[in-house]
Amino acid sequence: MQASLNTYLADRQQLINQFMKNYLEKQDIPERLKASILYSINAGGKRLRPILMMASCEAFGGKPEDVLHTAAGLEMVHTYSLIHDDLPAMDDDDLRRGLPTNHREFDEATAILAGDSLLTMSFQLIAEDEQLPAEKRLYLVEQLSKVSGASGMVAGQMLDMESESKSIPIDDLKRIHHLKTGRLLSFAILSGAYVAGASEERLASLEKTADLLGVLFQIQDDILDVDGDEEKIGKPVGSDETNEKSTYPKLLGMDGAVREKTEYVKEAKQSLSEADVDDTMLSALIDHLSNRDH
Amino acid sequence: MQASLNTYLADRQQLINQFMKNYLEKQDIPERLKASILYSINAGGKRLRPILMMASCEAFGGKPEDVLHTAAGLEMVHTYSLIHDDLPAMDDDDLRRGLPTNHREFDEATAILAGDSLLTMSFQLIAEDEQLPAEKRLYLVEQLSKVSGASGMVAGQMLDMESESKSIPIDDLKRIHHLKTGRLLSFAILSGAYVAGASEERLASLEKTADLLGVLFQIQDDILDVDGDEEKIGKPVGSDETNEKSTYPKLLGMDGAVREKTEYVKEAKQSLSEADVDDTMLSALIDHLSNRDH
Repeated sequence: MQASLNTYLADRQQLINQFMKNYLEKQDIPERLKASILYSINAGGKRLRPILMMASCEAFGGKPEDVLHTAAGLEMVHTYSLIHDDLPAMDDDDLRRGLPTNHREFDEATAILAGDSLLTMSFQLIAEDEQLPAEKRLYLVEQLSKVSGASGMVAGQMLDMESESKSIPIDDLKRIHHLKTGRLLSFAILSGAYVAGASEERLASLEKTADLLGVLFQIQDDILDVDGDEEKIGKPVGSDETNEKSTYPKLLGMDGAVREKTEYVKEAKQSLSEADVDDTMLSALIDHLSNRDH
Repeated sequence: MQASLNTYLADRQQLINQFMKNYLEKQDIPERLKASILYSINAGGKRLRPILMMASCEAFGGKPEDVLHTAAGLEMVHTYSLIHDDLPAMDDDDLRRGLPTNHREFDEATAILAGDSLLTMSFQLIAEDEQLPAEKRLYLVEQLSKVSGASGMVAGQMLDMESESKSIPIDDLKRIHHLKTGRLLSFAILSGAYVAGASEERLASLEKTADLLGVLFQIQDDILDVDGDEEKIGKPVGSDETNEKSTYPKLLGMDGAVREKTEYVKEAKQSLSEADVDDTMLSALIDHLSNRDH
């Protein structure tokens, strides 16, 4: 499985990278702004969200090409959020994936505008996807705006900042992560299946898997911040500690966090099997996400 | 005309304000983020873009209610752009419409997120507009993303910043304004007519009016920055001078700028009359925009 998973990851990564590159090159964008956008898009992201979307689309009988516009849109929303979160006024990070953050490489104003550009472009990408009927595109625009906006990802970032230097209950922590990272991951899986034409019933059963995936993703993120390899994660370990963030290892201890993660992996695979599709690759991706080293 | 124009402006302003208020109140948004969003939305904007859109929709036989979602979306894009442009890393303004700017009233991080929220919400608003068929909503999403993104408004802001402390040719200045303010104003007029069902031919003829309106709007903006009333415009006059911005009065002299504006008003009305619709109110709005005192 590992060999074929690695081939799959590399192949799908190339597909989405090539698509985004072609799309961006065609756009008429002022030089420095374009350089700043391309800098963050090319900064070595793993493309986990696009790959999840493609794998989900394929599990439900579609082709990876069917979701390229939406997958690129989602990756752009993710990238914009990293650029804005790294700003001095927010998390004030100097490094991202081993490279200077956007505002460090360019400047704050350019970084803000690059983020704004990517967010705006994500909706344009979906709206322009002529492979899909208008109703489907519209549904995807609506869902993406909901999961990424003031009731979704942006809400999560706001609550996350407000919780700094505070000890918060585990349920609040879960809510923040659900908003900040869970809903976008969930959108990846659900929209892939939706584009492939999954029934309402199957989409409903997939929703549980999608939610669990978001949680286990975050637990692994917190774990890596404690005992990850700086070279691999591309930023200093212990930054959550420095920023006084509530994390799973802090609230449950490292053993407790690992136990919780293992439990979620089991449940996620269980609920996935109930969707009754060829879940080989999606299931392998769940293991991959929960054991990733960066 | 003045009395009925004032009634019209007040009435349409109330319509759009009420709609945005109702919409925002229904959203589940973290308290401080919601307060920050509402602060900027309620900070006394004149709603020129929504009113232009409604007037254009009405001129082509539609009702103002037909474009409320799109008009609110456009006003939110405009508001987000003001919040981000005012940030310390960008224009670093402390006052906007006589009130502290968003990051001054709240903080930089909250202001960045409020802007991100409004931008995202604008697309959600249009996607959710059940009065319009899917194809029309999709077209509006696509157009709004184009005029506001990296090849539109954001490009304008980028080029505007890059031109600071430089003397630039008048054609470059026109291009910056076209991108930064012209395209959104143009979207207001064109989308109003589009929603009302205007033919391709009439839309094409309206495009010239829309472009000219953008230019005369900017000339008046530059003029007000030189000899406006601080109380009325809500910020110090002379800020363009301080920021070493290229402006029409600087490039053409004050008399030249006024002459240029008068010429554009004439041309805009001329081309509007060619669209062959009831242009009474739109025409009055052109005069209003070119003579506004704030």
